[in-house]
Amino acid sequence: MARYKFTLSYDGYNYMGFQIQDALPTIELELKKAFKKLLDEDVKIYPSGRTDRSVHAIGQVFHTDITKDIPADGLKRGLNAYLPNDIYIKTCERVPDDFHARFSAVKKEYRYYINIKEYNPLTIRYMPYIPNLNADWMREAIQYLLGTHDFKGFASASIDPRKPTVKTIFQIDLLKENDKLEFRFIGNGFLKYQIRRMMGILVEVGKGKFPPTKVKEILESKNPQDSKYILEGCGLYLYKVYYEKGFN
Amino acid sequence: MARYKFTLSYDGYNYMGFQIQDALPTIELELKKAFKKLLDEDVKIYPSGRTDRSVHAIGQVFHTDITKDIPADGLKRGLNAYLPNDIYIKTCERVPDDFHARFSAVKKEYRYYINIKEYNPLTIRYMPYIPNLNADWMREAIQYLLGTHDFKGFASASIDPRKPTVKTIFQIDLLKENDKLEFRFIGNGFLKYQIRRMMGILVEVGKGKFPPTKVKEILESKNPQDSKYILEGCGLYLYKVYYEKGFN
Repeated sequence: MARYKFTLSYDGYNYMGFQIQDALPTIELELKKAFKKLLDEDVKIYPSGRTDRSVHAIGQVFHTDITKDIPADGLKRGLNAYLPNDIYIKTCERVPDDFHARFSAVKKEYRYYINIKEYNPLTIRYMPYIPNLNADWMREAIQYLLGTHDFKGFASASIDPRKPTVKTIFQIDLLKENDKLEFRFIGNGFLKYQIRRMMGILVEVGKGKFPPTKVKEILESKNPQDSKYILEGCGLYLYKVYYEKGFN
Repeated sequence: MARYKFTLSYDGYNYMGFQIQDALPTIELELKKAFKKLLDEDVKIYPSGRTDRSVHAIGQVFHTDITKDIPADGLKRGLNAYLPNDIYIKTCERVPDDFHARFSAVKKEYRYYINIKEYNPLTIRYMPYIPNLNADWMREAIQYLLGTHDFKGFASASIDPRKPTVKTIFQIDLLKENDKLEFRFIGNGFLKYQIRRMMGILVEVGKGKFPPTKVKEILESKNPQDSKYILEGCGLYLYKVYYEKGFN
């Protein structure tokens, strides 16, 4: 058995998410089918984490164990030949058996894009169109999200209550270009829907519907009902997964 | 009856082209359906020209005559509410009855994008991936295309033989960015498949398979068989239609 680490990017718009759900279109299903065709093996896919319906990836990571000993470059080329054109393996490498795509990860970076200029049918699958947002108000609100907090108020109401909801966000940048806003979130992990719920509140703040301090209130209320403004998945990108030294 | 001029953009990837073909997905069919729902009228759509399967538009233009007298802005908003999210009316204005989207046009600008860096599943619907192209060789070849020529050798073999094949190309620019090549073609009109066939030859020149003078040979041979390297539609954009003074 040999363990391999894969980095992949995908256009998630037409998928129901990463995790396999019977025959529904998912990234995991396509990966399993490609492995089966290439190696005639039913491999188990261990991703760094799931991405939801329509969410894209620039640098998702997974590992898998393969019985055949295959050159990493051949594996990359072979899988890409069998994958649909909206999923692409960027890198493949042999890793030690103690590498784990999920448990060895120390940081994750997500990005969210919003088109603020004019509706564009050519980018609507990649960034929602929301005009008239005040970036300064959003920047002020972002400050309350930084650091270690119980993010229960920004998590899906349906998450397992036994799961810890305290997470650390190391960095959030808001870049304003001519026609778009780019948000960069770096944290030690994010809860289900957390970024889309935080984005939803930031957008309401940007519209002037809530003051920037609304973010602080939700952190304190810990009530997911307060962050029900969930932005669309198709503006969200899993940008990069950072690993422990020696695994990067 | 009142005549209206519309500018629209679309993601053409999922369409069989502009022109209606029974119930197949086409831009024209979606427009007619939206007019029918909004006005309960079966309008006739006069585009500046057709675009082929998978070809995108940033600034396609059409005109139509409507029996009801409707404010242009209401027409724009109403149609956009009924159009699918990959087609968008950018502008709508009342125009004199002698305006014709096709016959009043004096110039057209098309653009073609090629990803030259690394395969990208998030842009593959918008620019084909073709690495290792020598832009200098392509620029040299472009010079032969400028000006007035019989472009029969770069036209679809199936075009109506009674149609004139002499056209003028005023300008071709090749811009090289970090990860992409952008080609801009401005001419008084282009034949069916002409740009994709010219692009196909330019790519072969960029690969070093043909010398830049190959372009001149095809203009002289007038044989479409010599330009059979037709690049994909999804890299092509109808960028702008220029009209006679007073109609812009």
